[in-house]
Amino acid sequence: MKKSLGAKPIVYPTPVFLVGSYDENGVANMMNAAWGGLCSSNPPSVAVSIRQERHSYDNIIQKQAFTINIPSTNQAKVADYFGLVSGKKCDKVKLSGVAVERAEFVDAPMLKDCPLVLECRLIATHDLGVHTQFVGEIIDVKIEEECLDSAGQPDIRLVDPLLFAPGNRAYFAIGDFVGQAFAVGKDIAAHNGFE
Amino acid sequence: MKKSLGAKPIVYPTPVFLVGSYDENGVANMMNAAWGGLCSSNPPSVAVSIRQERHSYDNIIQKQAFTINIPSTNQAKVADYFGLVSGKKCDKVKLSGVAVERAEFVDAPMLKDCPLVLECRLIATHDLGVHTQFVGEIIDVKIEEECLDSAGQPDIRLVDPLLFAPGNRAYFAIGDFVGQAFAVGKDIAAHNGFE
Repeated sequence: MKKSLGAKPIVYPTPVFLVGSYDENGVANMMNAAWGGLCSSNPPSVAVSIRQERHSYDNIIQKQAFTINIPSTNQAKVADYFGLVSGKKCDKVKLSGVAVERAEFVDAPMLKDCPLVLECRLIATHDLGVHTQFVGEIIDVKIEEECLDSAGQPDIRLVDPLLFAPGNRAYFAIGDFVGQAFAVGKDIAAHNGFE
Repeated sequence: MKKSLGAKPIVYPTPVFLVGSYDENGVANMMNAAWGGLCSSNPPSVAVSIRQERHSYDNIIQKQAFTINIPSTNQAKVADYFGLVSGKKCDKVKLSGVAVERAEFVDAPMLKDCPLVLECRLIATHDLGVHTQFVGEIIDVKIEEECLDSAGQPDIRLVDPLLFAPGNRAYFAIGDFVGQAFAVGKDIAAHNGFE
């Protein structure tokens, strides 16, 4: 039996994106954003929604670039901190003590210790009420070598990304392998006459 | 040491959205889409990207509505099947044997057995290369009562949602609780003089 919760922004799971940008003085900023996801395969692109009053909003508009840094579970504290403190009030990245470096292809900072980083060039903005959606073309993906499997492919278990659950207002880890995609459904397809 | 993977659509994790729509004859369709996520808190809205050649594309444009059905891990087979077979070629929902019903507020079908369903009204489309992004205002969220915690709040552990990992091309479950959001980072904030 289902219960109606009304009109609320809930999906499971959301990612935890640490969005990197530089301000006009070249000061690195990071914000924690969970409203986002991939949005096209070609050009490869990712969307992240940011409120207009955020420091990152002005930074990204000005630099036309940002990074998406995906933290692992052992970075939960600093990831959460980036969502608690505004870069308008202080140099929050410097105060956190985490190491940043300039991205290779875009004018934005990346977190040295995040296992997965996307370098993005701003290609569109969409005003969607209280949030503006920033669409970034993914210029490059960088991953810690130790997060690649034996075939050289990224492995989510090695990245050990942090997830966010809106209803719980909590962070979770990735759990068990369930099945191979484009494979586990073939039984049903075959049963219905599809190869 | 980081390695460059080039320009690829990879973030961890992505959700598994089963997108429900009706065609012009009222035949229910479901597709498996992982490129999407929440995109605004007010109006509460969700984005999902769909290729123009998909059956769902025409359906959603015509009906101006869709549902997002979030499967649990025990629905991996049927979720994958919805990504393997096109509704252009057959009545794939009927062939799968899963039960659907009309959504309460929008002209789209929902899966009876999915623990979490969003009823969405199409409010924007954005052409982003090979994918078109559909933005839906979330009119209602429906959840199985057994997925609510003792305080009546949605609990991701009870929903047990399926996740997708692009690099692995595989489905995973939610894992361990890591920490409370807007809380675990307070140590760092306090250390730097923020309340």
